Amino acid sequence: MTQSQLIAQIKKKQSFLCVGLDADLDKLPRHIAEGPEPLFHFCRKIIDATAPFAVAYKPNIAFFEAYGIEGWQALEKTISYLNTNYPEVFTIADAKRGDIGNTATRYAKAFFEQLAFDAITVAPYMGKDSVEPFLAFENNYTILLALTSNQGAEDFQYHTQDGERLFETVLQRSQSWSGAKERLFYVVGATQAEALTDIRKQVPNAFLLVPGVGAQGGSLDAVAHYGLNDQCGLLVNSSRGIIYASQGEDFESAAKDAAEELQLQMKKWLTKKGIF
Amino acid sequence: MTQSQLIAQIKKKQSFLCVGLDADLDKLPRHIAEGPEPLFHFCRKIIDATAPFAVAYKPNIAFFEAYGIEGWQALEKTISYLNTNYPEVFTIADAKRGDIGNTATRYAKAFFEQLAFDAITVAPYMGKDSVEPFLAFENNYTILLALTSNQGAEDFQYHTQDGERLFETVLQRSQSWSGAKERLFYVVGATQAEALTDIRKQVPNAFLLVPGVGAQGGSLDAVAHYGLNDQCGLLVNSSRGIIYASQGEDFESAAKDAAEELQLQMKKWLTKKGIF
Repeated sequence: MTQSQLIAQIKKKQSFLCVGLDADLDKLPRHIAEGPEPLFHFCRKIIDATAPFAVAYKPNIAFFEAYGIEGWQALEKTISYLNTNYPEVFTIADAKRGDIGNTATRYAKAFFEQLAFDAITVAPYMGKDSVEPFLAFENNYTILLALTSNQGAEDFQYHTQDGERLFETVLQRSQSWSGAKERLFYVVGATQAEALTDIRKQVPNAFLLVPGVGAQGGSLDAVAHYGLNDQCGLLVNSSRGIIYASQGEDFESAAKDAAEELQLQMKKWLTKKGIF
Repeated sequence: MTQSQLIAQIKKKQSFLCVGLDADLDKLPRHIAEGPEPLFHFCRKIIDATAPFAVAYKPNIAFFEAYGIEGWQALEKTISYLNTNYPEVFTIADAKRGDIGNTATRYAKAFFEQLAFDAITVAPYMGKDSVEPFLAFENNYTILLALTSNQGAEDFQYHTQDGERLFETVLQRSQSWSGAKERLFYVVGATQAEALTDIRKQVPNAFLLVPGVGAQGGSLDAVAHYGLNDQCGLLVNSSRGIIYASQGEDFESAAKDAAEELQLQMKKWLTKKGIF
């Protein structure tokens, strides 16, 4: 899908919510975990329950990969279910891949062609020739890690040369890469909301994928305040706060309620900023 | 396997060669590509042809992942073939994963438990809490990207704070992480041989996985000169130079010859440095 379709959907659903599908067998409601194809069935039910409030879904690839071939089958079914039943939503493979040239192209083909995701998360450490092969896919989006929401973000991402922090160097350099203006998004953790002001100066128009709201302690209000641009420009992700809102038989309605609560907050911000 | 078993095998085979299994369907000999299970059969034949000269194998996960479930089946068969028939070799999943906490643990389980690799390559950008979950597996090894062999390495890895380049900060900080002294290796590209002197000052005892010899232009002599320590401390990888030495029906003998040629050079260096 295109960015303008994404923006149209944000306006229609009055939401910039991304639901993270971190489907962990150990945390699923028992009646799902003990049934057939638990990973797929859990994801399917979460998707159905939250789709009115979400514009994007982000399966976390590790949780599928951990189960080998069975896990890949569940991932294939999940993305195929999304593409068939909710073609209007934006789909993100949270894979954080990073490798060069031909290898990167192989990863891109796996996620963009084989699985038909709209976007993939990619790590920047190896530089330009590890990211441009993803950007070369003209109908897809690459979401580059800039400033992450975890504690370890401080280890290297704040490494400072001539007053410029590494995550700022990543933003600045990557903007010149082929395809970046049209197809490069960034990951910025919600726990780093105060840095969003600086980030918006560097990439005023880019979409930012923001994890870390909820369980990790990030504030949606702070993220919206510092991060929204006049086309929205944000996808705020919540995983555990929605998908494990209840781990009992009522998990679907609990997930729906948690998603709706976030959507209502988002609607306020979209209204306040005049994005309709 | 343990590090001392790896070192014993290096001494026995008089080699520190790692063969990179970048099995690309488009480059396989035609009679293999057109036969059943081409990825697995190609890898199996390369392994059989080169095992007398190699101490490690490194399947490049992207090349398998690109083919979805079929690719995972080929990967499972390849690692299982290695573990069954060549239990003495060191196996590396070249996956360059990097994610936090529970997600990292899931990746570790996928590669260390589900697939039973000895080691995995990991990216450092997200910091300590993205690497320690891998290091927590006491019978496995984590190979952290430090200075890579590609051109894009210059984009961020040389970012310099107070005279310290980012790859040096990665080496220095990561040494303090839990399990690092025993189980943390590093990736250092062969094209960066002159930096090996500085790297050896920081991590005199760590094993270094060195890609980039051959097709990428790195010199084995320079790598051995600057990188060997008194326990060897190197695994030098060659992929294309061995596995595609011939793309005809004689690919096995061509791969054998290419591997043997590198092993003979390695033997000279091991002798010169008195590592027997």
